[in-house]
Amino acid sequence: MAGDALSRHGERALVEMLRRLHDPDGRSGIGDDCAVVRQRGGALVATTDITFDGVHYPSDAPARSKGWYAAAVNLSDIAAMGAEPLGLLVAYGFPPETQLRDFRNVARGVEDCAAAHGTRVLGGDTKGFGNLTICATALGVATHGGPLMRSGAKPGDILVLTGKVGRAHEWAATNGRSGLGRMLKVEPRLREGVALARAGATSCVDLSDGLALSIHLLADASQCGMVADFDAVPFFDAVRSEDRAAAASYGGDFELLATVPRDKVAAAIAAVEGVGGVLAVIGEVGGRKVRYISSGRERPLPKEGFEHLRGGCG
Amino acid sequence: MAGDALSRHGERALVEMLRRLHDPDGRSGIGDDCAVVRQRGGALVATTDITFDGVHYPSDAPARSKGWYAAAVNLSDIAAMGAEPLGLLVAYGFPPETQLRDFRNVARGVEDCAAAHGTRVLGGDTKGFGNLTICATALGVATHGGPLMRSGAKPGDILVLTGKVGRAHEWAATNGRSGLGRMLKVEPRLREGVALARAGATSCVDLSDGLALSIHLLADASQCGMVADFDAVPFFDAVRSEDRAAAASYGGDFELLATVPRDKVAAAIAAVEGVGGVLAVIGEVGGRKVRYISSGRERPLPKEGFEHLRGGCG
Repeated sequence: MAGDALSRHGERALVEMLRRLHDPDGRSGIGDDCAVVRQRGGALVATTDITFDGVHYPSDAPARSKGWYAAAVNLSDIAAMGAEPLGLLVAYGFPPETQLRDFRNVARGVEDCAAAHGTRVLGGDTKGFGNLTICATALGVATHGGPLMRSGAKPGDILVLTGKVGRAHEWAATNGRSGLGRMLKVEPRLREGVALARAGATSCVDLSDGLALSIHLLADASQCGMVADFDAVPFFDAVRSEDRAAAASYGGDFELLATVPRDKVAAAIAAVEGVGGVLAVIGEVGGRKVRYISSGRERPLPKEGFEHLRGGCG
Repeated sequence: MAGDALSRHGERALVEMLRRLHDPDGRSGIGDDCAVVRQRGGALVATTDITFDGVHYPSDAPARSKGWYAAAVNLSDIAAMGAEPLGLLVAYGFPPETQLRDFRNVARGVEDCAAAHGTRVLGGDTKGFGNLTICATALGVATHGGPLMRSGAKPGDILVLTGKVGRAHEWAATNGRSGLGRMLKVEPRLREGVALARAGATSCVDLSDGLALSIHLLADASQCGMVADFDAVPFFDAVRSEDRAAAASYGGDFELLATVPRDKVAAAIAAVEGVGGVLAVIGEVGGRKVRYISSGRERPLPKEGFEHLRGGCG
């Protein structure tokens, strides 16, 4: 790859370039899970995510799972803002030879996910293109206590997590295919996000780039250190104790990682359990660096995650 | 193409299928220029449009023009609702071998268009993919008199148009290449749209599918007939009188076509001129069918436009 190709930079450097171009004064929150538009009566939040068949999921995944996944990853970003969804827009590129049944099943997957999470598809776009492409946009409105930005964590706050880590690891351990539909059936933690916002959470992010990077994202945005106790993180059964650091650096998990003031942790746990979720205490905010504890030993947490573009990886 | 392929159906049949799936009770306005979310304090409007390099514009177009175009076609849909833009989200698929300079120029084109029209880029997504893909989403808020739906035209209303028709025709007449950047430099008629809404327009659509189809879209949505006087339509100079019907069936124009009550036409013209635009009276609403007049003769207006997917065309 000659010259100054994007593959030499990686997604985060490019996003930083875009942030400087589009948002030099830091008003719009580029780089958070959602953009925020402050309006009378509350904050509108919006996010978009584009997925290409055969790049971000295998082409032979069930059509309905592809649609679900495209909707779910966007709703997960709405959840990370502690917001309630207003609806989805979905733009498709479809190969003209696509069977009508498959087209309908992709759209049904989107509809299934929207309906299961109390929202709906508002509109979209359909174009012909050689590679199935789904670009979904989710809109939401911040509730009481929101929007939860990445930048609000304070020293002394407690780090909490809404569920298990290591879906991709578990999927790999079962040789993939068998669980492909299940792997794509991401459940956005919308009710948990709203519960966390109302309970007074100070920052939040979803785990779409992996647990390790997500901890760094909160720490960097909030300009403070953090320590995560991996012995307290609920991992999937397939993740052996020696694999924890690796599983924490994978994408594929869409739980919420949040910070909550120490005196509100009990209320946050009760609020999340009240909407049918779970909330684990996995660390705290403090110090200068980002560290993790595993088998009782504290180490620096590598800033590794699932980064697009670099090395040609999707 | 075997079986029941999408190429046998065409974009509008697919959109109708999606509308029945996602919006069986007709609440969200799927099929209008934007989706509408009614909120306290006004209506939020949102639209998304996906474009693929080499399909929706030539690959050798200037990078900055590609970005401008992607932003402009979405802002044109906001304009057609008589709304003011709140911002854009832009999701990219970029080949990893893309030069950083080209990436930056695409983003600059988006920024140029947003800034020129008083809005900004709020966020987005960047992924690696073999074919440059730009999926932009525009958000807006309806102003006084809006949102302008396609369905509000009433018999007796006057059909008005904000500018000239036949950009694609003119582009072809100049052998293309020379004017490619200019062809992609679509100017969304945002100020005109707001002026029309405030002046009491009853319906509006942008010309992205061509004048002829746009007239049918208003007529169908409003369940009334219309007659357009092509002798009164301002065409580009390259469009000879015998080419008018053909030019009216091309895409590539992004003017606004609206209906205005007869007693408000003078005020609408003054309002549009007041924001630096032009407004031509080109017909009226009435009768059962959709007709056009050319060289003094009235004929049925063919329902032809620029439809994606059918026949494999992008």
